[in-house]
Amino acid sequence: MTETRHPLLGALRDAVGSAHVLTAADTDLTAYEQDWRRRHRGRALAVVRPGTPQEVAAVVRACAAHGTPIVPQGGNTGLVVGGVPDGSGTQVVLSLQRLNRVRALDADNLTLTLDAGCVLQVAQQAAEAAGLWLPLSLAAEGSCTIGGNLATNAGGTQVLRFGNARDLCLGLEVVTADGRIWNGLRGLRKDNTGYDLRHLFIGSEGTLGIITGAVLKLYPHPAAQLTAWASVPGLDAAVALLALAQRHLGPGLTGFEVMNRFALSLVRRHFPALHIPLADEAPYAVLLELSDSEDEAHARARLEATLADAIERACASDAVVAANLAQARTLWHIRESIPLAQAEEGLNVKHDISLPVSRIPAFCAEAEAALQAAVPGVRLVNFGHLGDGNLHFNVQCPEGADGPAFLRQYEGRLNALVYDLVQRHGGSISAEHGIGSLKAATLPRYQDPVALDLMRAIKRALDPAGLLNPGRVLADNALP
Amino acid sequence: MTETRHPLLGALRDAVGSAHVLTAADTDLTAYEQDWRRRHRGRALAVVRPGTPQEVAAVVRACAAHGTPIVPQGGNTGLVVGGVPDGSGTQVVLSLQRLNRVRALDADNLTLTLDAGCVLQVAQQAAEAAGLWLPLSLAAEGSCTIGGNLATNAGGTQVLRFGNARDLCLGLEVVTADGRIWNGLRGLRKDNTGYDLRHLFIGSEGTLGIITGAVLKLYPHPAAQLTAWASVPGLDAAVALLALAQRHLGPGLTGFEVMNRFALSLVRRHFPALHIPLADEAPYAVLLELSDSEDEAHARARLEATLADAIERACASDAVVAANLAQARTLWHIRESIPLAQAEEGLNVKHDISLPVSRIPAFCAEAEAALQAAVPGVRLVNFGHLGDGNLHFNVQCPEGADGPAFLRQYEGRLNALVYDLVQRHGGSISAEHGIGSLKAATLPRYQDPVALDLMRAIKRALDPAGLLNPGRVLADNALP
Repeated sequence: MTETRHPLLGALRDAVGSAHVLTAADTDLTAYEQDWRRRHRGRALAVVRPGTPQEVAAVVRACAAHGTPIVPQGGNTGLVVGGVPDGSGTQVVLSLQRLNRVRALDADNLTLTLDAGCVLQVAQQAAEAAGLWLPLSLAAEGSCTIGGNLATNAGGTQVLRFGNARDLCLGLEVVTADGRIWNGLRGLRKDNTGYDLRHLFIGSEGTLGIITGAVLKLYPHPAAQLTAWASVPGLDAAVALLALAQRHLGPGLTGFEVMNRFALSLVRRHFPALHIPLADEAPYAVLLELSDSEDEAHARARLEATLADAIERACASDAVVAANLAQARTLWHIRESIPLAQAEEGLNVKHDISLPVSRIPAFCAEAEAALQAAVPGVRLVNFGHLGDGNLHFNVQCPEGADGPAFLRQYEGRLNALVYDLVQRHGGSISAEHGIGSLKAATLPRYQDPVALDLMRAIKRALDPAGLLNPGRVLADNALP
Repeated sequence: MTETRHPLLGALRDAVGSAHVLTAADTDLTAYEQDWRRRHRGRALAVVRPGTPQEVAAVVRACAAHGTPIVPQGGNTGLVVGGVPDGSGTQVVLSLQRLNRVRALDADNLTLTLDAGCVLQVAQQAAEAAGLWLPLSLAAEGSCTIGGNLATNAGGTQVLRFGNARDLCLGLEVVTADGRIWNGLRGLRKDNTGYDLRHLFIGSEGTLGIITGAVLKLYPHPAAQLTAWASVPGLDAAVALLALAQRHLGPGLTGFEVMNRFALSLVRRHFPALHIPLADEAPYAVLLELSDSEDEAHARARLEATLADAIERACASDAVVAANLAQARTLWHIRESIPLAQAEEGLNVKHDISLPVSRIPAFCAEAEAALQAAVPGVRLVNFGHLGDGNLHFNVQCPEGADGPAFLRQYEGRLNALVYDLVQRHGGSISAEHGIGSLKAATLPRYQDPVALDLMRAIKRALDPAGLLNPGRVLADNALP
């Protein structure tokens, strides 16, 4: 039976209209079948693009009737292979991209209600148009969707003050595995009427239900935002600088990013036009952001006083506050160029880890020593959201070595080395990227066994047939 | 068979030692069997007081082996009859009060790890001793426990900026229905390694597992806190004042409480020694709190500028900033005396509701009119956390009427009237108190039916025998 004649296809066309059921016979499906980092190319039975929550529910019922697995997909920008089909050609990709209406903005309640397929930037702009602020920001914001952000509990650069994506969400609309619609689109700050289903679906990576709509929190715009750059002598000093900045600035501290010297050297090598400030070759640099509710002069005085205190206490060796918006953008641009510079430099082994902030210096010292012992000459690109305890702790092959060979030979071993140490320091092997397929087999080594059993019980309860994004989060063998 | 010879009792004594298994034969169990508001007096088979999480697990296993239901209990200060046994004499009360160690404080990570039975005030003091702040505060803080706060997702007076109890919790330790211990005591701001079990147990009122430990977030102390009192001409003005204060003060606005004229008149009548400021008989008063990370002079200038702007824009008719800490305490004390003044005045029908902030003026106007139509002369005590959309919307019998008769005649009808309107305005029938037994039969009328089915499926998955706090949240008939 060719794909185009699969009996499910007729039901899908009835559900959403034939223009919105794509198969390889008529369309190039690469954009739906390949993941963002191009680590995996799958093959879909079909790609279905429903335009309403009701159509999503109809697609789910049709797939359930045929026992066909569903892979929900937003902007397909995930980093852990969680939103593309496997290679079997038996899975339906359910793309949320046509479900992209901004439904309502309530300025007095500071809430924005929208379809799950809205691109994050569109949501940011909707808030902006009302003079308000949606403080969710991440590299993929031009193409990732709100539904994907919530399904993976995305992080980004504003977590220090506003939390992860889950913390910005007040309400959800979800299509369940049996094709019903839960209307939980409440815009309430307090609601203790039963189990918190919202937080259960958020971060479940499409394995428990399909998010079709959400209510997000908005905030008044800060009157001024300022960015500063500080050189710090080590991670102990960076942790001390964080505590000092939190004392001085309180909730005004909205960004605290750290970058090691090697990460910045890669930016310098591959993007020479970017001017990195304070070229004093300190072991680490920190980017600080202050959001102030008064005005720029006030913000500048506070930030300068904070940095002066930091230098006096030797948490920083030098520091500079961006003089204007263009300079501030450049500082953020340097920080955001690290992943690209790293890709230019060649293949590397990535780790998106989190730790108690207090354990970061000891963890990094131990991990660097262990990595050098395991692979002499290996180079560490260490950067991330220190304020959240989240590091992108990436291992680049020794200078001049063969990247692919390095990955083949060492990826598994280096992962185990880093994750074992993360575990010993009370950390997490996935801070903000999720589990997807990429870490599903690894998760059981590091997650509490009781927690895994509880998760399996929940999966069986909410998706007894195991048709929602199978193999993600919990590996297939954990399912009935 | 008398209670003292019940075959389970031996197993319980083996688990925790006989000194910690109390029965009515040897001890007055009133404190464990009667709820805070004295609406219900149950009868327990026994009260068990384990001293470690392992003992909690052993108690749960013993009860499971005998098919005996367990009612977990913290400080027994809940308001919805969720922590006391039914009248059957067949349920075991599992008191967490002996599980009361502060386990660890990590100043650099801003976390506090403690046993679930710690009294909230003890936790606050542990933070204080390290120069840090646990911003969870509620009337019962001298006797309620952290485990109870989390099991019921308590609210309180700091929700506007810091969220509900769930938002202050990073990690949990939980004994499952089969008597195993999930160690989820992580102190991480980011952790995307599977379903968020933490948020599922938080707010589940002991029906899915028993919280035995938690990791809470701490914050640096604000440099100054100031409290102000404003008279406002109506709820539209109060909502406008909230928006204005949020624009001016940003995250510095940590409190925004509203009280209607009648609520304050009861305080004046029953606590004449309390001096209520601005006795201008405005329809509503607002209490604002500013937490500032600079100093008191700065805080005062900001708050005064905010209030001056509010008066100019007619969101407030008059306002005063507390001159010192004693005055600030008095203002909070007035606010916190409302429930007591109300109790002095006589019986009343309580509603702990939340609404989108934008809907509060319309809801209150409609509800007041409907209440007057239903019971002429009825008096409304309307106060609460306006910044969170949370009102305590309590109905006092007409002046001079017979309280008990009023309750008997009208409670059900007034509940239905208020809740139906809450529902129509997109609100919640339980903002911060939970469901317990008191609202379990009411919940299905107002909660989405798909949500209820999902909750039942989760309950069956995690507590298949239905032994954990039966009848709470989901009424018994929903269980197998």
